[in-house]
Amino acid sequence: MNNLDSATLAAQLLGGHRHALARAITLAETGGAEARALLGAVYPHTGGALVVGVTGAPGAGKSTFVNALAQHWRAAGRTIAILAVDPSSPFSGGAILGDRIRMQPLGGDPGVFVRSMASRGRLGGIAHATDDAVALMDAAGFDVVVIETVGAGQSEVEIAATAPTTVVIETPGTGDDVQSIKAGILEIADVFVVNKADREGADSVIRNLQTMLRLAERSVSSWMPPVLPAVALRGEGIAAIAATIDQHYAYMLQGERLRVHAQARVERALALSVQELAVTRARAHGGGATWRQLVERVIARQIDPYSAADVLLDAP
Amino acid sequence: MNNLDSATLAAQLLGGHRHALARAITLAETGGAEARALLGAVYPHTGGALVVGVTGAPGAGKSTFVNALAQHWRAAGRTIAILAVDPSSPFSGGAILGDRIRMQPLGGDPGVFVRSMASRGRLGGIAHATDDAVALMDAAGFDVVVIETVGAGQSEVEIAATAPTTVVIETPGTGDDVQSIKAGILEIADVFVVNKADREGADSVIRNLQTMLRLAERSVSSWMPPVLPAVALRGEGIAAIAATIDQHYAYMLQGERLRVHAQARVERALALSVQELAVTRARAHGGGATWRQLVERVIARQIDPYSAADVLLDAP
Repeated sequence: MNNLDSATLAAQLLGGHRHALARAITLAETGGAEARALLGAVYPHTGGALVVGVTGAPGAGKSTFVNALAQHWRAAGRTIAILAVDPSSPFSGGAILGDRIRMQPLGGDPGVFVRSMASRGRLGGIAHATDDAVALMDAAGFDVVVIETVGAGQSEVEIAATAPTTVVIETPGTGDDVQSIKAGILEIADVFVVNKADREGADSVIRNLQTMLRLAERSVSSWMPPVLPAVALRGEGIAAIAATIDQHYAYMLQGERLRVHAQARVERALALSVQELAVTRARAHGGGATWRQLVERVIARQIDPYSAADVLLDAP
Repeated sequence: MNNLDSATLAAQLLGGHRHALARAITLAETGGAEARALLGAVYPHTGGALVVGVTGAPGAGKSTFVNALAQHWRAAGRTIAILAVDPSSPFSGGAILGDRIRMQPLGGDPGVFVRSMASRGRLGGIAHATDDAVALMDAAGFDVVVIETVGAGQSEVEIAATAPTTVVIETPGTGDDVQSIKAGILEIADVFVVNKADREGADSVIRNLQTMLRLAERSVSSWMPPVLPAVALRGEGIAAIAATIDQHYAYMLQGERLRVHAQARVERALALSVQELAVTRARAHGGGATWRQLVERVIARQIDPYSAADVLLDAP
């Protein structure tokens, strides 16, 4: 695809064509010059969407919860794009099957767009592809963009860096004591949902989370994450959670809060973009010959990788 | 630390001082100019160690297995450095406690060095810090360097990219059918170990793995990963596994195999180094002013992150 085609795709995407959005996200997953041209064309049209991150352990019911939330928002007239990110699937081609299964409860509604992404492929990893996909969904005019990701290590931190509002799902029965709440989760959660709240132990999970939040040091003026019960499968608790998400966004709009979050998000996006462009250029340097020669010299231990990188970045 | 100090540290490390190695790895975890200077100084002295990756699901008995392997190698007069990488702990400060607990069975033996690393901190993530730590352990003169990591998504692929020989640990009881074997694992495993082989279902896991390996397409001349039983807690099966690891390394030494692996490893290391240096320079550009101005313009959506990265990489 040349730049003209990127421009056409951007125009279709901005016009709200679903197929254009799907194709644009596939481009973003792969990265490269076309993806960059496309993002450049749509970037001025981003910023309209409420971006919400949803994370939780496998089995916490994230998909069910997000679908219930989407149905609630649809009933209120809002359009929703869902990006399901699976950082634990470097190999899997299962994303497409997952999309189809997920689409059923919301079947055929043009106000809902669902897309899965696995972590394979893209230089710079899933964080960069996620940022770009969110920007594309935002530019396509969806009112809400939900990033859903399994809570595994770095992915939670990354979702919080991308989304101004992060919902963390806990469940009873996976060990309802304080020890089972992962360290660091308090730092990223804006809203706690205790899903499957009809199960034994739900009250205990809620109490323990509330205790942990009280014990955590917070300034008086800052947001205290509410802990809300839900039975996502039956849609219970969803309306209150949706209202709380809007409240948190309103809170972020006060003062410099959204700006502070945007700064961290943009600093990361800029670093990832510099990384991607620098490697692309380094590989192309001297028609590829410089890169190949330096690889040989590093293999022979005549030069270390950092000094070789210096050569690639310094030379014209 | 200035370059003179890096040189002193490098000299101490090459002289086999344990404290220098520990300090050097801490530097590598953080990254930066000092880490780069240190790696440059020791890089010509790397390449002597047998580098082995060990991966498996949580609870597979990785630490016990690696400790048993280390005791076996020590009895054979070889020195061992163990790098335990935990990509699922972005926050945890638990690495140090883990180190202490792990040291006990091998307690005080100067021929064994154990170090844990979590994924926090380092720009470029844990892959880059792992590469550097392995190079430092190698340069410090250890005969074997073991990289141990939990099998979670990308980390397995990365361990296989760093280590010419990768051992994958499976266990009975976690679902012994073919479905439970993660997709893609056949591509990276050089040796399969079925640990806890005294438990029910071990034979079935072994048979299933063997069937999968037969069904997988492999060229006639290529290595067929053996599936070996072990009860690491009692040291059973360890001698055969150690011998198989040596056999695989001998296999890699034939023809171009080790070179092909080294090329992939170096290409990755070079890309990571270019990324790190490019971002370091971009942030420092114009005394930091260019970066700050571009961040503001991206926040205001006057420019997209890729075009901003172009400015940072193009300008002098």
